Amino acid sequence: MGFSKDNLKGIVLALISCGFIGASFIIKKKGLKKAAAASGVKAGVGGYSYFVEPLWWFGMITMILGEVANFVAYAFAPAVLVTPLGALSIIISVVLPHFILKEKLHQLGILGCVMCIVGSIIIVIHAPHEQPISSVQEIWTMATQHAFLLYMGSVIILVIILVFYFAPQCGHTNVLVFTGICSLMGSLSVMSVKALGTSLKLTFEGNNQLIYPKTWFFVFVVAICVITQMNYLNKALDTFNTAIVSPIYYVMFTTLTIVASIIMFKDWDGQSAGNIVSEICGFVVVLSGTILLHVTKDFKRSSSFREKSQFVGGSYTPLSPSLSAGLCSGNGVLEA
Amino acid sequence: MGFSKDNLKGIVLALISCGFIGASFIIKKKGLKKAAAASGVKAGVGGYSYFVEPLWWFGMITMILGEVANFVAYAFAPAVLVTPLGALSIIISVVLPHFILKEKLHQLGILGCVMCIVGSIIIVIHAPHEQPISSVQEIWTMATQHAFLLYMGSVIILVIILVFYFAPQCGHTNVLVFTGICSLMGSLSVMSVKALGTSLKLTFEGNNQLIYPKTWFFVFVVAICVITQMNYLNKALDTFNTAIVSPIYYVMFTTLTIVASIIMFKDWDGQSAGNIVSEICGFVVVLSGTILLHVTKDFKRSSSFREKSQFVGGSYTPLSPSLSAGLCSGNGVLEA
Repeated sequence: MGFSKDNLKGIVLALISCGFIGASFIIKKKGLKKAAAASGVKAGVGGYSYFVEPLWWFGMITMILGEVANFVAYAFAPAVLVTPLGALSIIISVVLPHFILKEKLHQLGILGCVMCIVGSIIIVIHAPHEQPISSVQEIWTMATQHAFLLYMGSVIILVIILVFYFAPQCGHTNVLVFTGICSLMGSLSVMSVKALGTSLKLTFEGNNQLIYPKTWFFVFVVAICVITQMNYLNKALDTFNTAIVSPIYYVMFTTLTIVASIIMFKDWDGQSAGNIVSEICGFVVVLSGTILLHVTKDFKRSSSFREKSQFVGGSYTPLSPSLSAGLCSGNGVLEA
Repeated sequence: MGFSKDNLKGIVLALISCGFIGASFIIKKKGLKKAAAASGVKAGVGGYSYFVEPLWWFGMITMILGEVANFVAYAFAPAVLVTPLGALSIIISVVLPHFILKEKLHQLGILGCVMCIVGSIIIVIHAPHEQPISSVQEIWTMATQHAFLLYMGSVIILVIILVFYFAPQCGHTNVLVFTGICSLMGSLSVMSVKALGTSLKLTFEGNNQLIYPKTWFFVFVVAICVITQMNYLNKALDTFNTAIVSPIYYVMFTTLTIVASIIMFKDWDGQSAGNIVSEICGFVVVLSGTILLHVTKDFKRSSSFREKSQFVGGSYTPLSPSLSAGLCSGNGVLEA
């Protein structure tokens, strides 16, 4: 279970990605602090001095490297494995400040970290193996099977209803509207990223897939999905408290991605019931850890919470749900 | 994995046991309240009016039934499975008051319950099967193998050192002394209870084991171990805050019991690495849930904490560590 060569590569890449993304927020925060100290104007109140701060750019580069590693991880291992591991970046982003920024970690936060790690181990042990893919045509066949077309159709209809009916009506009062749009689009993002990643992997292995229009179609789908997801994630983060958005987004995004991956890549076919239940349990444990980390973050740091919201100007990572929602932005209507 | 017929019987019995034990505390508390209201003197300040209160006796009977179910569970399923499930009785004892006694459950307490349940599912799925035992002689052979004699010898030496050297010196300042004695003796209690339970099970199946002196020897060992364990658990609970004693006792008791069971019954022989790691993860999850429940219990109820310590007059359950430590007693030096 879990430890095929490709799965192992995927796990290592996902862990590296979490490390880079988690660290990038700390580096950027250090950069923002330095820039604020030099210019006297904080980013949260309109300062842009961080653009000339090398530390901030170093943080940006770290984050891009992390995103690339995440992207490549999807090419090797099932989404059922890579997506839930995204929660581990929270640990980095919570544990590093404890040492570097001297932001003290609440004791229950440590418990949250332990749970994220233990849950991830359970997920990794019970992760399914993926069938090797030899061409973009194969992915295309998977993406156009009836079950997945039905899923895709339902997602698009739901997103349209949410965007045009619910968003104007209750988008700013109900947290589920914007996060729902992000999560639905996110599941399609991951599937298309995985398709594209696999095509590129095959191309690098000498089996050129760039000659097929289908590869370029996937590039187009990735762009559309990621932009929509980014747009509504920013709206969600600007409107609601991160401590509310983050766990909801994590659970919806991860659940929908797992569902999409099970339908498209048939991840759970041939898996024993025990394996599947264990994996779901692992996911629930990681989710509980995430909630605990976010809730306890507010326990002791509520006084310095304003300062953290200066991250609103930064970018976020559409494929690492929990972290992006957890640390990028935070000033909003409900938080005030 | 996990679902042999005997394991299933063991799981059901363990769950029934948790239900009875968990409920018994609530019933007894109701009884204590009624008795206090009738006589005007609380148990915590020396009242004994609860002895004439039928509800309190009903609670006692419920608890004894729970202990019997727990005892029988050990005869069917491995200790590696039954012992960690003991944590589930905490859930009953935390969730029932929420509805019956209107003691509001903290939101993080709900998360703790979810974790205890999920961790238990993981443990159940990955529990090993036990070899069927056909006579008390077989258990005797297991108990007298070199490895287990070594374990038993080390435990007895450690207990003697703790009782005669450390207990007088720092028993009232270091929480590990009394809980250590309880946990070390507890692991021997469970092993001897399991031996006795299996003998009785065989006897009821028509294969009379009561004619062998070895069976009566196990009765003697059970008595010695349980009395020692009871004595030092009461000392620990009288000296330290239950919120500190309970998780420490749970982790030490469960760990030592699992170690003893692995050595004596070779529970993990022939288990895959994935299975063993998953089971350890499940155990860590249950432990985290336990800690969370105990920590958050103090968050909102600290004002009514004194009232809860009237349980000090009740008995406790030596084989269900977390609950006994969590609810039986509570007024002590450190808590004041």
